[in-house]
Amino acid sequence: MGKTERVVYFNGKFVNESDARISIYDSALMFGDMVFEMTRSFNKKQFKLEEHIDRLFKGLKILEINPNLDEKELLNICEKVQEINEPLFDENDEHRLMINVSRGPLGIYGGLVSGLISEPTVVVADFPLKWTVVGMSKFYKTGINCVIPSQRAIPSYLMDPKIKNRSRMWYQMANIEISKLNGENNWPLLLDTDGYIAEGTGNNFFIIKNDVIFTPEPRNILRGTRRDYIFSLAEEIGLKCIEKNIEPYDVYDADEAFVTGTPFCILPVTSFQFKSIGKGSYGEITKSLLLKWSENVGVDIEKQIKEFNLEHNLSLNASTPYQHKSHK
Amino acid sequence: MGKTERVVYFNGKFVNESDARISIYDSALMFGDMVFEMTRSFNKKQFKLEEHIDRLFKGLKILEINPNLDEKELLNICEKVQEINEPLFDENDEHRLMINVSRGPLGIYGGLVSGLISEPTVVVADFPLKWTVVGMSKFYKTGINCVIPSQRAIPSYLMDPKIKNRSRMWYQMANIEISKLNGENNWPLLLDTDGYIAEGTGNNFFIIKNDVIFTPEPRNILRGTRRDYIFSLAEEIGLKCIEKNIEPYDVYDADEAFVTGTPFCILPVTSFQFKSIGKGSYGEITKSLLLKWSENVGVDIEKQIKEFNLEHNLSLNASTPYQHKSHK
Amino acid sequence: MGKTERVVYFNGKFVNESDARISIYDSALMFGDMVFEMTRSFNKKQFKLEEHIDRLFKGLKILEINPNLDEKELLNICEKVQEINEPLFDENDEHRLMINVSRGPLGIYGGLVSGLISEPTVVVADFPLKWTVVGMSKFYKTGINCVIPSQRAIPSYLMDPKIKNRSRMWYQMANIEISKLNGENNWPLLLDTDGYIAEGTGNNFFIIKNDVIFTPEPRNILRGTRRDYIFSLAEEIGLKCIEKNIEPYDVYDADEAFVTGTPFCILPVTSFQFKSIGKGSYGEITKSLLLKWSENVGVDIEKQIKEFNLEHNLSLNASTPYQHKSHK
Amino acid sequence: MGKTERVVYFNGKFVNESDARISIYDSALMFGDMVFEMTRSFNKKQFKLEEHIDRLFKGLKILEINPNLDEKELLNICEKVQEINEPLFDENDEHRLMINVSRGPLGIYGGLVSGLISEPTVVVADFPLKWTVVGMSKFYKTGINCVIPSQRAIPSYLMDPKIKNRSRMWYQMANIEISKLNGENNWPLLLDTDGYIAEGTGNNFFIIKNDVIFTPEPRNILRGTRRDYIFSLAEEIGLKCIEKNIEPYDVYDADEAFVTGTPFCILPVTSFQFKSIGKGSYGEITKSLLLKWSENVGVDIEKQIKEFNLEHNLSLNASTPYQHKSHK
Amino acid sequence: MGKTERVVYFNGKFVNESDARISIYDSALMFGDMVFEMTRSFNKKQFKLEEHIDRLFKGLKILEINPNLDEKELLNICEKVQEINEPLFDENDEHRLMINVSRGPLGIYGGLVSGLISEPTVVVADFPLKWTVVGMSKFYKTGINCVIPSQRAIPSYLMDPKIKNRSRMWYQMANIEISKLNGENNWPLLLDTDGYIAEGTGNNFFIIKNDVIFTPEPRNILRGTRRDYIFSLAEEIGLKCIEKNIEPYDVYDADEAFVTGTPFCILPVTSFQFKSIGKGSYGEITKSLLLKWSENVGVDIEKQIKEFNLEHNLSLNASTPYQHKSHK
Amino acid sequence: MGKTERVVYFNGKFVNESDARISIYDSALMFGDMVFEMTRSFNKKQFKLEEHIDRLFKGLKILEINPNLDEKELLNICEKVQEINEPLFDENDEHRLMINVSRGPLGIYGGLVSGLISEPTVVVADFPLKWTVVGMSKFYKTGINCVIPSQRAIPSYLMDPKIKNRSRMWYQMANIEISKLNGENNWPLLLDTDGYIAEGTGNNFFIIKNDVIFTPEPRNILRGTRRDYIFSLAEEIGLKCIEKNIEPYDVYDADEAFVTGTPFCILPVTSFQFKSIGKGSYGEITKSLLLKWSENVGVDIEKQIKEFNLEHNLSLNASTPYQHKSHK
Repeated sequence: MGKTERVVYFNGKFVNESDARISIYDSALMFGDMVFEMTRSFNKKQFKLEEHIDRLFKGLKILEINPNLDEKELLNICEKVQEINEPLFDENDEHRLMINVSRGPLGIYGGLVSGLISEPTVVVADFPLKWTVVGMSKFYKTGINCVIPSQRAIPSYLMDPKIKNRSRMWYQMANIEISKLNGENNWPLLLDTDGYIAEGTGNNFFIIKNDVIFTPEPRNILRGTRRDYIFSLAEEIGLKCIEKNIEPYDVYDADEAFVTGTPFCILPVTSFQFKSIGKGSYGEITKSLLLKWSENVGVDIEKQIKEFNLEHNLSLNASTPYQHKSHK
Repeated sequence: MGKTERVVYFNGKFVNESDARISIYDSALMFGDMVFEMTRSFNKKQFKLEEHIDRLFKGLKILEINPNLDEKELLNICEKVQEINEPLFDENDEHRLMINVSRGPLGIYGGLVSGLISEPTVVVADFPLKWTVVGMSKFYKTGINCVIPSQRAIPSYLMDPKIKNRSRMWYQMANIEISKLNGENNWPLLLDTDGYIAEGTGNNFFIIKNDVIFTPEPRNILRGTRRDYIFSLAEEIGLKCIEKNIEPYDVYDADEAFVTGTPFCILPVTSFQFKSIGKGSYGEITKSLLLKWSENVGVDIEKQIKEFNLEHNLSLNASTPYQHKSHK
Repeated sequence: MGKTERVVYFNGKFVNESDARISIYDSALMFGDMVFEMTRSFNKKQFKLEEHIDRLFKGLKILEINPNLDEKELLNICEKVQEINEPLFDENDEHRLMINVSRGPLGIYGGLVSGLISEPTVVVADFPLKWTVVGMSKFYKTGINCVIPSQRAIPSYLMDPKIKNRSRMWYQMANIEISKLNGENNWPLLLDTDGYIAEGTGNNFFIIKNDVIFTPEPRNILRGTRRDYIFSLAEEIGLKCIEKNIEPYDVYDADEAFVTGTPFCILPVTSFQFKSIGKGSYGEITKSLLLKWSENVGVDIEKQIKEFNLEHNLSLNASTPYQHKSHK
Repeated sequence: MGKTERVVYFNGKFVNESDARISIYDSALMFGDMVFEMTRSFNKKQFKLEEHIDRLFKGLKILEINPNLDEKELLNICEKVQEINEPLFDENDEHRLMINVSRGPLGIYGGLVSGLISEPTVVVADFPLKWTVVGMSKFYKTGINCVIPSQRAIPSYLMDPKIKNRSRMWYQMANIEISKLNGENNWPLLLDTDGYIAEGTGNNFFIIKNDVIFTPEPRNILRGTRRDYIFSLAEEIGLKCIEKNIEPYDVYDADEAFVTGTPFCILPVTSFQFKSIGKGSYGEITKSLLLKWSENVGVDIEKQIKEFNLEHNLSLNASTPYQHKSHK
Repeated sequence: MGKTERVVYFNGKFVNESDARISIYDSALMFGDMVFEMTRSFNKKQFKLEEHIDRLFKGLKILEINPNLDEKELLNICEKVQEINEPLFDENDEHRLMINVSRGPLGIYGGLVSGLISEPTVVVADFPLKWTVVGMSKFYKTGINCVIPSQRAIPSYLMDPKIKNRSRMWYQMANIEISKLNGENNWPLLLDTDGYIAEGTGNNFFIIKNDVIFTPEPRNILRGTRRDYIFSLAEEIGLKCIEKNIEPYDVYDADEAFVTGTPFCILPVTSFQFKSIGKGSYGEITKSLLLKWSENVGVDIEKQIKEFNLEHNLSLNASTPYQHKSHK
Repeated sequence: MGKTERVVYFNGKFVNESDARISIYDSALMFGDMVFEMTRSFNKKQFKLEEHIDRLFKGLKILEINPNLDEKELLNICEKVQEINEPLFDENDEHRLMINVSRGPLGIYGGLVSGLISEPTVVVADFPLKWTVVGMSKFYKTGINCVIPSQRAIPSYLMDPKIKNRSRMWYQMANIEISKLNGENNWPLLLDTDGYIAEGTGNNFFIIKNDVIFTPEPRNILRGTRRDYIFSLAEEIGLKCIEKNIEPYDVYDADEAFVTGTPFCILPVTSFQFKSIGKGSYGEITKSLLLKWSENVGVDIEKQIKEFNLEHNLSLNASTPYQHKSHK
């Protein structure tokens, strides 16, 4: 008899997804003291998984968390999880892995609470990509309107966003602000405390001006794996991609703009603060980048997302990358 | 038949402590998007529980999380949890409650993962106080040496510490820094970005100069319930307690200093940056405050902590309020 | 024969309002280099006119503009303008004076452009109060929802808002941001760069907590004449009004809130960032303050504004104190 | 019959210059809420007029002001104004256009004040260049001494100087400070709040070191059209011009320095904070740049300014680009 | 035979003043790593000497310099030095002591350079007060004009001015700036980086408004012993003296202003940034404070300084408290 | 008869080293108002002496100190001092010159204190290099562990570190902090106030990543002569050296790291904040740079330092570049 529930790797075991729960005494819940990665596959093959795991280990080193396994072992676990779960995935769906590593239950609780030991917690989950992206297909038509919230990005010298960590309450505060605006396609785009564009709450931002692609300096942002990939895609289509401090003025003055994120790859940004960018439509260079990406991975990324849309019936509040559910 | 494991209130049910685990798809784990309280009892009676719950609800309001119960209901749950668990507590131990409320599983996962619904997660746990304080009895002899780490407190306009939230990775980074210093009694004391004393990583700071008690302005700190209580204790012993911006210079120049925290109430700070404060010993006014507190609650707080120490054999790394376990 | 158009004092003459225009070569237009005051009457008698003029002269001193007349002379001019125009005002209307003093035409143009001399420009206009307040009567029912825009108040050490000057483009930028929000009663409330509440774009902000009235320290704000008056009103009704750094957290935690402005005096603020303040309705103490004010000046301020409303038919975009007309 | 007074384009009409006045109810005067450009001709031909107009429209877009005409129409108006006024200009003089666009009379006044409608105000004036530059010829001999005032440039995230706007009271405050210094050739050079050189109060700044030209990054400055032109001039004479954060130390260490501004094009800066730059005289590369410029436009720029000087008798306070007239 | 040269206490010995020289290998010269005090007598009796010495020892503690003597011993040395030198002082002159304590010769040099040991350097010098104050008598007539230089006070969290240390190059940079201004009575008054008034380069600043005396909060300033004394003087004449953040606007708006410094006690400030404070003359309350001070110490302080002036013929550049000699 | 004590050039004379002492009335001691250079020889030949002197004169110009001699004259003095002292140096030792120039005795003391004139003080000392480096040989084995102290680098706009000045108390405060850490090889590495790596307390910092060498932008650091030399060394071994803002994250992520300083040239940094950099050992590229340097100057730099070690018996506290001697 086949499995009827996806499994999750959890500290050496494969457990049912509904049992993939972390103790309330874990440092992850006490301090947001957890490093993580979220990936996706193309045609069931994980993309840039080594880069994800490499970034994860950098964060762990800085936080002095030793996961008791090495990069290669973690990679194998990821592949194993996907392999076990594949029978439960639709044929045309993709695997979205979530890797979590925390410092584990705090020392004072380990050994005292039944079953808890003070060792790092390592989790690898695997769920359908379409959950995340199904609400986004419409943005290929409307484009996104990026809006600057009052909330500023926390500067890296206070808490480094380059460590992909879980102390992100401020992302939710930015999301809440933007939810009050007129319109359906508003996404927050945070300024840092110097007034430069930093990032969205889960995506990286790019502008194009005179056929050159610009993206913020890699300081007060997560250095996304998709962000990194744009540099090589740009080269493939014969353009330069340059890291630069970007001000709101530069966005108003851009020809095109887009965001990148692991699940959707690229989405066009057609307005900024409710004012059109360039012609106000899905830009030609943005399209070329996504097309090239699709070619490289053998998946028509935009089409795949749109088709997910056809067969599903999810709530509309799945329209921001990491939406919140607020109760007034 | 008696219970053999403590229970935890978890979304309407009482579950075993070892089952008190939060889904990896919960906003608490995704974003550190959880508000919490930790309390203690004196002689088995919860202290300032209403104040704790009131503070919790302020945080929930700001984060737009609706816990689907009101303050009174939560209070009742707290009392119920303690009542159920009491038979499993030592006679001379106290109840430490931990109340957690998160936004719950993210909207895109609710309904898709077995058993998950996109409703707020509400947890009330109850564990022995002695776990937390047993390593601290020695500090009544040595006092604490407060040291300023390089890590600065995140200012409230970026992420408000007055919301008692779980996005505290930066606390752990401060703890790691201090763990590298010579000596056994070093606790981090964070400066804010203006160079004023803010707070420890889980405690509030006070100095005494010329018989006046001073504590930092309630801006870039958690406004601790114990901190609040010092104002009335001070009045009871005939002294003033004043909120003021405090600079390192003022600490060097103080007559006495102490920290407050829920589990230990008051601990003396006898040196700052490895330089003696006042006479370098447990100060007389500090003692008077703790004595008064003990009288008010009918428990000799210092003695209780020291006696916990005699009957237990816990690891020494329980010497900081929220210690970390680092692996090099 | 009666006048059919209001007059404006303009550099020593009384000219028709439609001729009250300032040369494009004036420093006022070149640099926003103009100091101003806007007043109102109660029962046709100017309120706090001396205070307005005193504040004006402070600004002129700092900017080294010599208006070639003294405070007394300016006062007389104000009274004269009102006297001339009174026949053109409705019986139940009030006089809103606008006093402008600029450095005058720049030195390089004076003497070259026909009719221009490089002397300060002094203007006193007088128009019906109802123009400004007619759209505001509804806020006594709904209250205002104060929202923090991304735009921060310019700190006083860069350009001092205490000089009531005309370099206020940033007010308009805040107004534009807020105009994108859902709802009809959103007003911007600016944070300063330290994250404290500063002011609205043309009004001062107050909260009430436990029967004490608080308002931001008089640093990064215009020190409004109405703001000053609240201190004495508070005393009259037996309350204290205290200047304090106010954070967003304090506003969420307040019992009541209100704004003050010259034309409307007091308007209730019933929510902050779309979350209710206190009971979410027009607060009792706020009402008492406005009632006392009405008594003191012999005008039922709220009623007067509501009655203006009945007999007029102005466009709804008169709903913010200094609304903008934007074209998308 | 010949005109005896220059005309100004004013909202669709050509009016006499002395009638080119803006209503006191205009947003330009209320908020400094006006975008502008100032140009000059060479041999009666406007220079870089398209660039000026392009910059103007960027500012209008950000401020959400719709001038009700497009770039081409505005260009035609500019040419028309110059054509009408030319008969009133000296043969050897040049046309200095001033284009102003404001949001227009505030909504609450439009329709109420006689003749006012709430539509944007568009003005194109045209006056002799010599007014502005006649006092500057001496600086080709003495050079300018740039001095850092206490006043800092307002950073772009608070009010963007790249929008050429009229909220510039702080320029006047810097001008006033510098007027107190010993000497006749002191010009303010503002630092931004990071301590980098920003700009003068109406001019851009350059240094030359080892045959490379440097100018501040285009962040906290107006991106001057003359500044832009230096990049191509530099290329023409075989040098590189690079945008870089410039500190005071770099200016002390420079070989040459100069400022650019629309009316005078280039003026040599021979000292900084009263200490010589390089040899303390009009630098060779600076001269070459101005020479090249003169060649390109067919006007000996320096000579023209000096000859203006001979035939005029203007007051000496025309010695700063935007001088103020202060009364003590 | 009488001494013909003043002596200086130097590491346990009394040496001739001309031999009071510190090794170039001393930490004082290497790092500005020296704490100091400068005092004065009234009628040959040292004023507030204990307070001076107490402040010195606070600084030494923070810098971890152990002078190998205690406060009482240092006091005795001071008295001894004055006693020895008294015969060389004019009858009507006063003793100005300078106490210097440095970390001493750096460890790597001690023992290697002949005569050097790596022990702290302790120096007490004693010279005529009139040297310092003789150029200041004129300021009782003209008053001082305080001017804000571009140089900002270094905030205490970067280098604490409350430690009276010798790393003061930035004082000299402020002095140099102010020396370029028109006029003979300009003294620098530094803003801190928040834009508040901090202090002069060797004096504390006060304003008076509505019979209340205000002085900056004791944060980014040296907490002068004379500053402290004003609080008790104020009480003696029935006024309040309050510590407050003071902005330039408050100074423009003040009734009176003055500075305090050890040698001259009080000097009136009659203008600020070249604009009159109050009536622009030596204020009545300022006078009362100095009069009270004179009574308390039995010396007519103003008269004494003026009489010094009559019998001396010192260079005029002694007109700032710590003047510099610059060579252009 | 041979000299038995080294001489020092002191204001035109050669005096014995033990007499090279600076008056307590000198501006150097009063304000840390002194500019300096420290050099070294290779095989008795001074290295980059012109660059050192050039940097010295830049600082003097900014501080408006005129040393009354030119760069060539100072160079000759340096050579003369070395020539006189050479007989007293070991054959295998090197000459470390220290050049000090201060503003000299303050104006009010000059002429009054016996032998003092208010002219700049110019000193050139010459002492054995081995004093400084003898304690460092061990670091070629262990490498240095760079640690970020709480003390931040003072930003250049408050006091410019590019002027090699003596107001460096804050260096000592950083040194004191680091002295409290576990371990023998901890050196402070300061962040600037933007959170970027600045410099050590007397050395410049470099990282290597993917065969490219990076060093902080030359803003909040001393631009070391050895730092400059790395750029040409890098070129000689075929690598690029790039100035860039470096964050702690970049250091954790580096392959190698090293510091440069005049006496030791290059020392390997093998860990950062107690976490290994790269392989945690003396990096290959770092070695190549030092090897190339050794070739260029004809001295095996590492070997020379290690051999100094063999023949000396100095105290271990000579282990930081500018160690302090603290007394607790």
